[in-house]
Parts: sequence; C-alpha cells; structure tokens
Amino acid sequence: ELTTLFEEYHFADIAEIIDDLTLDQATYLIKLLDSQRTSDILMELEEEVRERILDNLSAKEIAEEVEEMDSDDAADVISELPSNRVENVISQIEDEDRAKDIVELLSYEENSAGGLMAKELVRVRETWTVAGCVRKMRSQAKNVTRVHSVYVVDKHDKLIGRLSLKDLLTSDTATKISEIYIPKVDFVNVHTEAEEVARIMQKYDLEAIPVVDDLNRLVGRVTIDDILDFIRDEAEKDYQMAAGLSQDVEADDSILRHTRARLPWLVLGLLGGLGAAMIMGSFEDILENYTILFFFTPLIAAMAGNVGVQSSAIIVQGLANDDLKESLVNRLLKEMLLALLNGVILAILLLGFTYMWKGDFLTALAISLSLIIVIVVAGLVGTFVPLFLHKRDIDPAIATGPFITTSNDIFGILIYFYIAKMVLGI
Amino acid sequence: ELTTLFEEYHFADIAEIIDDLTLDQATYLIKLLDSQRTSDILMELEEEVRERILDNLSAKEIAEEVEEMDSDDAADVISELPSNRVENVISQIEDEDRAKDIVELLSYEENSAGGLMAKELVRVRETWTVAGCVRKMRSQAKNVTRVHSVYVVDKHDKLIGRLSLKDLLTSDTATKISEIYIPKVDFVNVHTEAEEVARIMQKYDLEAIPVVDDLNRLVGRVTIDDILDFIRDEAEKDYQMAAGLSQDVEADDSILRHTRARLPWLVLGLLGGLGAAMIMGSFEDILENYTILFFFTPLIAAMAGNVGVQSSAIIVQGLANDDLKESLVNRLLKEMLLALLNGVILAILLLGFTYMWKGDFLTALAISLSLIIVIVVAGLVGTFVPLFLHKRDIDPAIATGPFITTSNDIFGILIYFYIAKMVLGI
Ligand SMILES: [Mg+2]
Ligand SMILES: [Mg+2]
Ligand SMILES: [Mg+2]
Ligand SMILES: [Mg+2]
Ligand SMILES: [Mg+2]
Ligand SMILES: [Mg+2]
Ligand SMILES: [Mg+2]
Ligand SMILES: [Mg+2]
Ligand SMILES: [Mg+2]
Ligand SMILES: [Mg+2]
Ligand SMILES: [Mg+2]
Ligand SMILES: [Mg+2]
Ligand SMILES: [Mg+2]
Repeated sequence: ELTTLFEEYHFADIAEIIDDLTLDQATYLIKLLDSQRTSDILMELEEEVRERILDNLSAKEIAEEVEEMDSDDAADVISELPSNRVENVISQIEDEDRAKDIVELLSYEENSAGGLMAKELVRVRETWTVAGCVRKMRSQAKNVTRVHSVYVVDKHDKLIGRLSLKDLLTSDTATKISEIYIPKVDFVNVHTEAEEVARIMQKYDLEAIPVVDDLNRLVGRVTIDDILDFIRDEAEKDYQMAAGLSQDVEADDSILRHTRARLPWLVLGLLGGLGAAMIMGSFEDILENYTILFFFTPLIAAMAGNVGVQSSAIIVQGLANDDLKESLVNRLLKEMLLALLNGVILAILLLGFTYMWKGDFLTALAISLSLIIVIVVAGLVGTFVPLFLHKRDIDPAIATGPFITTSNDIFGILIYFYIAKMVLGI
Repeated sequence: ELTTLFEEYHFADIAEIIDDLTLDQATYLIKLLDSQRTSDILMELEEEVRERILDNLSAKEIAEEVEEMDSDDAADVISELPSNRVENVISQIEDEDRAKDIVELLSYEENSAGGLMAKELVRVRETWTVAGCVRKMRSQAKNVTRVHSVYVVDKHDKLIGRLSLKDLLTSDTATKISEIYIPKVDFVNVHTEAEEVARIMQKYDLEAIPVVDDLNRLVGRVTIDDILDFIRDEAEKDYQMAAGLSQDVEADDSILRHTRARLPWLVLGLLGGLGAAMIMGSFEDILENYTILFFFTPLIAAMAGNVGVQSSAIIVQGLANDDLKESLVNRLLKEMLLALLNGVILAILLLGFTYMWKGDFLTALAISLSLIIVIVVAGLVGTFVPLFLHKRDIDPAIATGPFITTSNDIFGILIYFYIAKMVLGI
C-alpha cells in the first residue's frame, strides 16, 4: 500500500518527507521501492541524507539506482561516494554505454559545462528527412526526459545546427532536415566555466545548450533546471560569505556544523577588535585631555565597515554580471568622489551633534574631518580588495563581509586618531 | 548596411551595444530598424535606457514595438510608461485581441503569476486527434516562441492536463488526445506569489507552468526564462540589502544614484555610533580606573554585529527556502546554545590576550564574561528580528545588514558595560 501511496506524489515531495525520517526508515524505503522511482527521489534528497543512505546500500544496489538516473545525476551521485567505492559501483552497472558515459562525465570539472551536462539528447543527421528523423527520435527520445531541441550533426558528429520540435511538428514529413534546420546554434565547450554557461543561457533565454568537445563534436547538453540550481547555490554562497559564514550551513544543521561555519570569521573579528584595542592603547597619552575621541571609536569602526561593505558589494555584483567596463583608475576615482560626498554629509551631521553635546568646536571638527578621511579610505579599500582578489582568481565575494569590516575597523581607528591628532595639533 | 550587420547579431548582444550609445543614437537606431527586431532589443535594454528611448517615441511607434513583443514583455513595457501615456499607447495597438491581452495582464500584481505570465501558449481540446491537434498547433504556435508543453482544456476552457511535444511527435496521428494526455499537471493561480511560482518550478524542474484563473480556466503560462530573471533579481536585492544598499544600484550608475542608495544606511550607522558614544559617555566615571574597558568597545560592537548578521542570514535563507520547521522557542534555544558555545571559545581567547596585555585578571575576566553575554543576546536578536519582520510581512532580508549591525552595536556596548561593572563590583 506504501507503493501505491507513493505513486500519487511527486518524487520531490517524497524526498522532503524522507529528509525528515530516521536513517533506517529512509534506507528501508529506498530498498523497498522500485529503483525507477527511488532514483529520482535520491537525487532530490539533501546531500547529507543521500550520503548516509548510500552508505547503507551495496554497490549493486547503488548501481541499480544509478542506472535509472539521467547521466548527469548518475555521475554526480557517484562522485559523492567515498573514492574506494566508485570503481566498484561502476563495475556493477549493467549497461556498458551508460557506464562509459558516467566515466566520461566524471572526468570533467564539477563547475564546468562538462560537469553540468547530461549525455541524453536527441541528435539527427542533416541528410535525413523529417519522417526519418521522427522515427529515429522515437527511439532516442525514450531516454530523454525533455527534448527541448533536436541537434543536427554532420557525419563526423560535429554540431552544425539545431531544430526546434515546433519546426519538426509543423513541417512536411518529406522535407529534408538540411532544408529546415537552423544553422545558428549557441553552444559551449566542455571546459567552459559553469558561470559562463549560466550567463549565456540567461542572456539568450535558452532552455538547453549543446556542449561540444575540442573537436566540435556534440558530446552532451546542459539543461536549464540544473543551471537554475547552480545559480541559486551560487547566490546562497555569496550571501552566506557576505554574512560571515565560512561554509554552507542551513538552519536545521547541527550546532557543531554551525559553530564550524561561524567561528572562523568571529575569530577574525576578535583579532580585529584586539588590534583596535591595542591601537587605542597606544594613544592612551591623549586620553585624559581628549576623552571624547575615544567615545567615537565604535562609530568610526562602524562607518568604515559599512562603507567598505557597500563598495565591495557593488564590485562583487559588477564582476558577477560582467559589467565593470571602466578602468581601475576611473573606478577608484568615482568611488573616491562618492565617498567624499557621503563623507561630507555625514561629517556635517557628526559635527553638529558633537558640538552640541560637548561644546568643544575644535575637537568636534577634528572628529568630523577624520570621519571624512576614514570614509574615503574605507571606500577605496572596499573597491580595491574585491578587484584584487578577482585578479588573483580568488572569489571576490569573500571580501564583502567580515573581512572588509574587520580590516576597516583597524585601518579606520588608526587613521582616525592620526588625523584627529593632526587637526588638534597634538 | 547597418540593418544587415545587425541581422547577424543576437538581439541581446545588440542591446548591450545600444546600452552604451548616446540617447540620440539609440533612438535613431530603434526608429530606423524594423520593429520585429527592435522590439526584442528594447526588452533587453537596461530599464533606464529603455525608458529614455520610449520618451522619444510617439504612442504610435511604441504601439508598433509592443505589437511585436510577447504579451508579458508588452505589458511590462507599457506598465513602465508614464501613466498619462498608457491609454494612448494601448489605443494605438491595431490588433484588438492583443490590446485586450495587455489590458488583462496589466491588471495583475507585478510579483504574481499573473504579472509574470504571457498569454501565448498552445491549447488543444481533449476531443481532438493528434492530427487535428498538429493542424491547430501550426496556426497557434506561430505566435509562441517556444512551445514547451501543449495544454489540454475542456469545453469550458478549464485546464485538465498537458501533452508533451515528445508524446505528440511519437504518437500515431489518429490517436485521440484524450488517450494520450497527462491529466496530472502542475499549475498556479493568477494570484500565486512570484516566489511561490519560482519555488514550484524549481522543485519540479518545470520549463513552463500554466496559469489558471479562479474558475480554473487556462489564462496564460509562466516560462522559466522569466523566472530565472526573477530569481536573479531577488538574490541581487537580498545581497544588496545585506550590504546596506537601500535601492537597486549598479557599478556604472551615477554618483547621485549611488549616494541615494548608500546614504540612508550610513546615516543609520551614524546614529548608532552616536548612541554608542553617548553610552560610553555615561560611563565616564569609571574611565580613570578602568580605562581598558573603553579600549574594547570596538571589539564588542564588531562581535555583536557579526554574530547578529550570521544568525539573521541563516534565518533569512531558511525563510526563503521555506525550511524553518522548528518552533520559535526551539529556534531561539538552539541559537542560544550555539552563541554560548561560540561565546565561551571567543571569551577564553580574549581572556588570555587581555591578561597577558595588562596583567589584571579581574578586569580581563569581566571583559570576557561580558563578551559571552553580548554574543548570546546578539544571536537572539539576530534570530528574532527577521522572524518578527517576516510575521509582519516585511522582507526579513532588511534585517541582515546595517540594521542588525547598528542595533547590536548599541545593545552590545550597553550590556557590556553593565555586566563588566557587575563583575568588577563597581
Ligand atoms: Mg530502490
Ligand atoms: Mg556533474
Ligand atoms: Mg533573459
Ligand atoms: Mg524574452
Ligand atoms: Mg539534469
Ligand atoms: Mg560566486
Ligand atoms: Mg562593525
Ligand atoms: Mg523600430
Ligand atoms: Mg509582467
Ligand atoms: Mg530542481
Ligand atoms: Mg533533475
Ligand atoms: Mg517572457
Ligand atoms: Mg527576497
């Protein structure tokens, strides 16, 4: 009765239920139910849950599940296995073509077109007729969940164009493919980075894109559902990085996992705070006469941090969307002007407040002028650091967040005291 | 010669070129070229550029462009026009059905299924045969860029199922649609929120989803390319909010626009800093004997801010992915435990450092114990605020960023001094 019950639900919904079961219950269900259904469910489970279930399955059982999956999912599942099990599972796959496909897919980088693509697609020759094409398609399409486009290849298997299902449906059956195919087709190389694939598919509104090898032979295709998952994952990662979480973590993960994700950045923040404390300590000699300077250090640190985070967020997004066209000098110049404008406005507010509070105009002026310089420097650091990281092939998103906040805390307070002392003539 | 040159490029590429032209040049090109091409280009332009070009076109010219667009894009363009031009443009649309479609689409909320959907789709009756269906499709599909699915309706136009192009292609032409259609079809109501539509399409890997009205009649469909744009926009907005940018802003926007986006949060940060300064001022009486307490205020503010941002980011993402299943009490309890664990580890580091630096164990202990309490409170605030905002139907993403940072700066420093005084017995 469980089987029929499960037949009524979509596998993505069943996966959500299984995510919340105990390991024993989950494993029992996966073993009990037909692989045709459970393979889809397995793919939709949270990675940790899937890993633990697979630990409890034999190589043969895993191979059976994998044979029912799309080749891209099959390769992903196998790549998650402990390395000593990989070969064993592959050798248990009965369909040899399938095993070959998986081995090929495992050879590509995870975040490349090759790592995202599936082998399932419909390919036709330019010399065929529509009727012949439809006949061939009937057999090929069995393994292809959604057809999207039919790809046209020459006799060397080189990609030469595509054919929409719509064109195929609305053409006379005797028409030659060579007469109706669209020779202009977007494609990517197996080594194209995933981000670039996502950008192309989004720009040209594609639901699938063919992937070719270095000899331009059609070897697979990337579909939009996997790109959507990729984009969402990347956005989540960037957001988490900006919030100072050093690894992917979700609300219902264990406390230990949360600690591992949060502690590194907090320790960095602590070091920054200790640095700030030592800087303040080194200015202790002016404490007695200029106490109020010390009261504004949290303000200075906060403003330096906020300005830095704003600037770096703009750069990180500009890099992600590939629309930073200006030169570095122009970018920094613009950021300086902007920081100057914001800085002056904020400094006037601060000046008014401080003067009213303590009645000491010179000190108020010193604090306010320092704030302007701190903001300008913070803006420049926030602009420069992500651009520098990007040049060094480090994900610039790491800059927006505790990294910039922390370094700007220290810089900010240091600059603040120097400028204030200068203005006050100490 | 321009025309033939432009024929070779994809409209998305041409749009990128036009984005960088002067307004006169851009307007000239849009007027010169055939609307069949320029309508697609217009859609891909940056919103500001498009608005300025449309300002320079007559109602008739806009209507011509709009007639060539998909209905969803047409409605979006018209909704961007100044309200006094809307009626004028609509009255210039020659095709009356099209005008009606646009008026209908304009009636839905922007961020709902109705606001995202297009009227173009292929619908067939269950009583038709495959052959009749293909014949009908030839005429309907002319206006539909990509068919995805064929939707099956009954005689009242109620959605009863769908048909994949694949099934249509691989079925005998005499087969009745009623025999081959899939009665289980995912759909959304016109009023379903865009976020929910995106979640459903991503969960079930759909490339298009039909939209029905309150009587279950098929009225449109949402396609994945528009969902992809929506998801990307939302992710960018969340990221920008977290970084303290109060409106959508890009690297190459004007300085004025950047100032408008950045200044509000900076002013908030300034107010927070002033609050912190006043709190410190109110503890001035202990300054002489416990100077070192004041040196650690930037550290306390930074830690309170970082912990708060981390906690709220987890909640914001949990809410976005709809996977916060625990109760509020459990959530807060877990966050407290976690903060306690992190707090103790950080406090031990701080204790060691401070004792080594100044040699005063009691003060070092007071500072470290205060840090633990500050971190626990910051974690609770970071967890509670986004949940509270969400309950009040305010976007919780607004919490992760300057809002939490700023309020935690003040709370943190206040709590810090109270606890430290208590421990020191002052
Ligand atoms: Mg099974
Ligand atoms: Mg892969
Ligand atoms: Mg697009
Ligand atoms: Mg479009
Ligand atoms: Mg896939
Ligand atoms: Mg990234
Ligand atoms: Mg801060
Ligand atoms: Mg035109
Ligand atoms: Mg719309
Ligand atoms: Mg999916
Ligand atoms: Mg899938
Ligand atoms: Mg559309
Ligand atoms: Mg949002």
